[in-house]
Amino acid sequence: MKNFHGLILAGGRGTRFWPLSRRASAKQVLRLFGERSLIQQTVDRLKPVLPPERIWILTNDHLRAEIVKQLPEVPARQILAEPAQRNTAPAIGLAARILHGIDPESIMGVFPADHVIGNPRSYIRQLKPAIAAAQAGKIVVLGIQPRWAETGYGYIEFPKGVQPGAPKLLPVRRFREKPDAKTAQKFLDAGNFYWNAGMFFWKTGVLLDALREFQPKTASLLASLPPFGQRGFAARLEETFPRCENISIDFAVLEKAKNVVGLPTGDFGWNDVGSWNAVYELHGRDKQGNAVRNSALIEDSSGNFVDAKKLVALLGVHDLVIVDTPDALLVADRKRAQQVGDLVKLLEKGGHHHLL
Amino acid sequence: MKNFHGLILAGGRGTRFWPLSRRASAKQVLRLFGERSLIQQTVDRLKPVLPPERIWILTNDHLRAEIVKQLPEVPARQILAEPAQRNTAPAIGLAARILHGIDPESIMGVFPADHVIGNPRSYIRQLKPAIAAAQAGKIVVLGIQPRWAETGYGYIEFPKGVQPGAPKLLPVRRFREKPDAKTAQKFLDAGNFYWNAGMFFWKTGVLLDALREFQPKTASLLASLPPFGQRGFAARLEETFPRCENISIDFAVLEKAKNVVGLPTGDFGWNDVGSWNAVYELHGRDKQGNAVRNSALIEDSSGNFVDAKKLVALLGVHDLVIVDTPDALLVADRKRAQQVGDLVKLLEKGGHHHLL
Repeated sequence: MKNFHGLILAGGRGTRFWPLSRRASAKQVLRLFGERSLIQQTVDRLKPVLPPERIWILTNDHLRAEIVKQLPEVPARQILAEPAQRNTAPAIGLAARILHGIDPESIMGVFPADHVIGNPRSYIRQLKPAIAAAQAGKIVVLGIQPRWAETGYGYIEFPKGVQPGAPKLLPVRRFREKPDAKTAQKFLDAGNFYWNAGMFFWKTGVLLDALREFQPKTASLLASLPPFGQRGFAARLEETFPRCENISIDFAVLEKAKNVVGLPTGDFGWNDVGSWNAVYELHGRDKQGNAVRNSALIEDSSGNFVDAKKLVALLGVHDLVIVDTPDALLVADRKRAQQVGDLVKLLEKGGHHHLL
Repeated sequence: MKNFHGLILAGGRGTRFWPLSRRASAKQVLRLFGERSLIQQTVDRLKPVLPPERIWILTNDHLRAEIVKQLPEVPARQILAEPAQRNTAPAIGLAARILHGIDPESIMGVFPADHVIGNPRSYIRQLKPAIAAAQAGKIVVLGIQPRWAETGYGYIEFPKGVQPGAPKLLPVRRFREKPDAKTAQKFLDAGNFYWNAGMFFWKTGVLLDALREFQPKTASLLASLPPFGQRGFAARLEETFPRCENISIDFAVLEKAKNVVGLPTGDFGWNDVGSWNAVYELHGRDKQGNAVRNSALIEDSSGNFVDAKKLVALLGVHDLVIVDTPDALLVADRKRAQQVGDLVKLLEKGGHHHLL
């Protein structure tokens, strides 16, 4: 499908991967698994439906140079730095505006840059009905069958009796924000609540219509941009973009539009790799449950995650996350890996800007 | 007393301080407290009774250059590398042989290079009766009043009713090897068992007589050396020393000689700094009991010891020893700090010689 384009959203900081993640080396450009970074793996897995010349990437000034370097197959002009952080609605609107200018019939898929998918073939196969529905004018959201009562994700409520992995688009009853633990358990038990993984499909014209309807200010600011590639585009974007409303596409469009449908997918090993603990869970481990990304000497220690570029010796320690870099070392209880982002906030407050 | 000389034994490896301690930077040359290394502190505290020109140091080839650098005030020719590790008896015998050649009336004090003494003034004051007794022909051993039921030291058994810190030499009933926990507790409760801290005093002639009596082979090998400073001394030592018996001065002489007396000292803050845990105990700590030798960001963590040259962030971790160096990192349960030396043995077996 020649008019199908991919937008990879790569503007996040991923502070929970500190001290490895920094402004100029955020989560999406880290090699957390194997030799390819998360954004490289994202581009790799999309190749069967999206050749790199139809990949577009939105990131920020800190990261753009690294992403251009990591993805030589993606045209550098299609890797854009947002002039300001304005959440997903303006970013997606901007990409839709650019693609619609190039081809008014263009279809667009939105993909986070920093997730892992264990079974890319199954994933690509399951995408196809979503792309077809987008072609037919729908706003399509992918639902991931939940595997536990997660409180960190939003949920998509489908009608009861949903069949995971059936290639069948369903109406979305409601979008549900991140639930508390009790509600999350109810969602899991009910069976018709799916994780919202931030993957969307639509015709660019359809999305722009919806933006005009629900976010008229942002829509008109984006409409005022000269065509992409023309002189003055960058300068005008620099001036316009920061004035767009700071809002997610979920709030701005998905929860309001009428033509929204969802695709409840079957398991393809999706993981949003939310913390060092997720890297630990996905990593190979020894018999004592230690996951080590370098050489280590391990005595009476279990359940540890170690990432370092030198020998690490463990003696009688358990369930730690140990991440070493040239200028900072993290030693944390693995159960508290989610809170590493809070450490980064403290570093920011403490004036340790060179470590961010 | 112009004929009083000090021998500092500085040949140990101190592997329990890995990864900071290496062959070329063993415990005694590390700056574990403040700006001065342990051997520098040893020389500093002896100055009231021993000017540096009467200090002699026995070490090994790996360490000699560093010690010469750290102690510019000690004549470099008095800092000798043992040609082989032969425990304390041959080392002490060698020094006695050299000093006796220089001055047959010389008295010698033996001092470990790697201990800490909290109150050096009280220490020096308490040394004086020991030096006087040595002058009078005795073999004198210093006893440290025990503060807990330590199983890692040898003990000196004095007659019952001993007064700590009284300037009075006492006969030694028996030397006791490292006891088990139960025996150590009995020693502590009895009150007449003192720690043997490896500090000895004698006339060099008296010690050489004792060696001739109890270790005739070693004594005659040492007697065959040309006078210190004469051509051929080093070459002959190279050939002779490895043939000396590998035995401690305790076994070789102290437990056998008749003219042995002990000085039960009062508390002068002696600590042999046996492991990272001892450094932790002696170090300043925050309210949560963390001892940090650099900048750290500490969240919900307690009882940790951290030594690193970069920022270390702790999150929800307790009672750890964390020591970072450019090529190796140790993370250990603080209660198991004694076993760090075993890790070094494993590294040796594993062929990690560049980390030793």
